[in-house]
Amino acid sequence: MQFSNVTAEAKANVYFDGKVVSHGITLEDGSTKTFGLIYPGVYHFATEAAERMEIIDGECIVVLDGSDDSSVYAAGQYFEVPANAGFTITVSEGIGQYICSYIETV
Amino acid sequence: MQFSNVTAEAKANVYFDGKVVSHGITLEDGSTKTFGLIYPGVYHFATEAAERMEIIDGECIVVLDGSDDSSVYAAGQYFEVPANAGFTITVSEGIGQYICSYIETV
Repeated sequence: MQFSNVTAEAKANVYFDGKVVSHGITLEDGSTKTFGLIYPGVYHFATEAAERMEIIDGECIVVLDGSDDSSVYAAGQYFEVPANAGFTITVSEGIGQYICSYIETV
Repeated sequence: MQFSNVTAEAKANVYFDGKVVSHGITLEDGSTKTFGLIYPGVYHFATEAAERMEIIDGECIVVLDGSDDSSVYAAGQYFEVPANAGFTITVSEGIGQYICSYIETV
């Protein structure tokens, strides 16, 4: 998936010793997205803004904070996380790749 | 380091089981670059076009094919590789990050 007319940051943000990495882009309308990779492991992320996590490669298991339900998302699927919340994401094998967009509401 | 008015590919190219990853961008003039991460290890890459590898984070050790000399490159430094050649790059610790540009000649 390509994004045109963007400003791309070449240096990645590195989380969990590099098990999760992201690159930021800024779109023409000023909005920002990140895309990146998730190596096998279990990670918790907190949100400030609400976000949509679109999986573009691999597969992950997601549990939203405060929920007992886990859902599996594969390439072409997405999940949304409310603002000021969080989620635990597990990649069991291979590498998950994602695009994260900040959204107004969930 | 940011690149403006580019088309960015969200999905990474994954090499060596994810120990080396790159994202491609296309600039306004139609030229392409990649940027990415190199996790600890030793990797050999072959070139088709000549390229400039700029290190933007971490440190790596590089030996060009056919050379006995190894050189260390840290953030802010670069090395160039001729077309139809190759190089062995070692990251001993941490994560190296790079921008790769295709160039006319070395």
